[in-house]
Amino acid sequence: MGLGLGDAKDITVRGLEIIKKCDKVLLEGYTSILTVGKDVLEEFYQRPLIVADRELCESNIDDTLKEAIEKDVALLVVGDPLGATTHTDMLLRAKQFGVETQIIHNASIMNAVSCCGLQLYSFGETVSIPFWTDTWKPDSFFEKICENFSRNLHTLCLLDIKVKEPTEESLTKKIRQYMDPKFMTVQDAAKQLVQIIDNKLDTGIKRTSIAVGLSRVGAPDQRIAVMSLEKMLNLDLGPPLHSLVIPAPNLHPLEIDYLEQFR
Amino acid sequence: MGLGLGDAKDITVRGLEIIKKCDKVLLEGYTSILTVGKDVLEEFYQRPLIVADRELCESNIDDTLKEAIEKDVALLVVGDPLGATTHTDMLLRAKQFGVETQIIHNASIMNAVSCCGLQLYSFGETVSIPFWTDTWKPDSFFEKICENFSRNLHTLCLLDIKVKEPTEESLTKKIRQYMDPKFMTVQDAAKQLVQIIDNKLDTGIKRTSIAVGLSRVGAPDQRIAVMSLEKMLNLDLGPPLHSLVIPAPNLHPLEIDYLEQFR
Repeated sequence: MGLGLGDAKDITVRGLEIIKKCDKVLLEGYTSILTVGKDVLEEFYQRPLIVADRELCESNIDDTLKEAIEKDVALLVVGDPLGATTHTDMLLRAKQFGVETQIIHNASIMNAVSCCGLQLYSFGETVSIPFWTDTWKPDSFFEKICENFSRNLHTLCLLDIKVKEPTEESLTKKIRQYMDPKFMTVQDAAKQLVQIIDNKLDTGIKRTSIAVGLSRVGAPDQRIAVMSLEKMLNLDLGPPLHSLVIPAPNLHPLEIDYLEQFR
Repeated sequence: MGLGLGDAKDITVRGLEIIKKCDKVLLEGYTSILTVGKDVLEEFYQRPLIVADRELCESNIDDTLKEAIEKDVALLVVGDPLGATTHTDMLLRAKQFGVETQIIHNASIMNAVSCCGLQLYSFGETVSIPFWTDTWKPDSFFEKICENFSRNLHTLCLLDIKVKEPTEESLTKKIRQYMDPKFMTVQDAAKQLVQIIDNKLDTGIKRTSIAVGLSRVGAPDQRIAVMSLEKMLNLDLGPPLHSLVIPAPNLHPLEIDYLEQFR
């Protein structure tokens, strides 16, 4: 079940009814986050939630599915439930267990990004920008942005999230230790993009190209900022989640007018 | 405000609260439809709705905006509110009138299409397939499908809707007459696509290429069918709305497994 993007009240009426009558309710907490925490949701639903981390949703999902043969189990996911591969996998696995499933859709960043005024049907392939480390700096997403750009399409860039990621130490020593949650900001993403641009020639996208930074889309404190990538290096768009859009080079007049509000 | 895709209960809790306290509630009725009619929504909201046709939303929108300076007016739109250009235009116009606006997002076909198991981030540009007439057979959407296909991306095809369209007679005679509502089916779309394919060489997409037909996405009677375009010529997917997806040539193993259910 999708929870939408803002807070507790972004659930659908159908979704809320199902939560109220389910035997067990899991809250998936590692592919995205709402602007409110588990406690606020529990208060709103008037029932306890079990946080489902990556382990529970991937390697240990069978236990939950076995339980779901007899009982009604809901899995709450921020945004729309089928944004991430994990959840499709889970549905297939459920079928093998003979568990009936139902999908409750909701808004996701994939459609709500239209709040910046760029037309949804002019978006090309979506990309994910991962956090770079000192030794790992993948840039294949940039090729995709350039391909969209050359076809006059916008690119939605989903920015990396690290929630309950095991520390390197815990991987080698087999002790259970997790890193602090980390959310890529529009500023982080701009930094990585500018670094790629500085090392490539003639990609069409420059330091001075316009980008659209978005934070907390769908929440009352949502922010949108339109400026060059270069200027974005100094932008603070506040608390997570953030997303970035690289617009097509030639915009529709209505798109230009709409973006103008956020300059 | 977006209403989502299925029936009355697909509205969000936040959305329903706003409807209950607004001074006036308009229902936009020409860019999409729900599986239930205005009367069912009125019963569920416990208040009357005013149907907003194209005239009211485009040429006559200023009257509504003037009213919204003093009063709270909600405009209900099937899916997400910013899927169509009309609504972005309306928001800009509202700003000119000094009317504050708020967007309530919801699921749209642009993200709910993931219910067929094809990964959202592997979709390229979305296309619209218009109804052909005897004299007007545009096929520019096909080029876009081919471009996505050649980049190994899926294409979501939105199928034409004609609601409250003036008859040709009414345009020339200046009398107000409307055609019966018309919704393009997956079968109609396949017919037009096969006709285009038969007239082109080496596009990559063939009569035997696999397509995914979807009807009433998000509703309890949702249907999904996976077959060749050729076989789709004989497919009846039931009542509207329908959508069509042309998948990328090389699918992820999980996508293949998921689609297999709908063969």
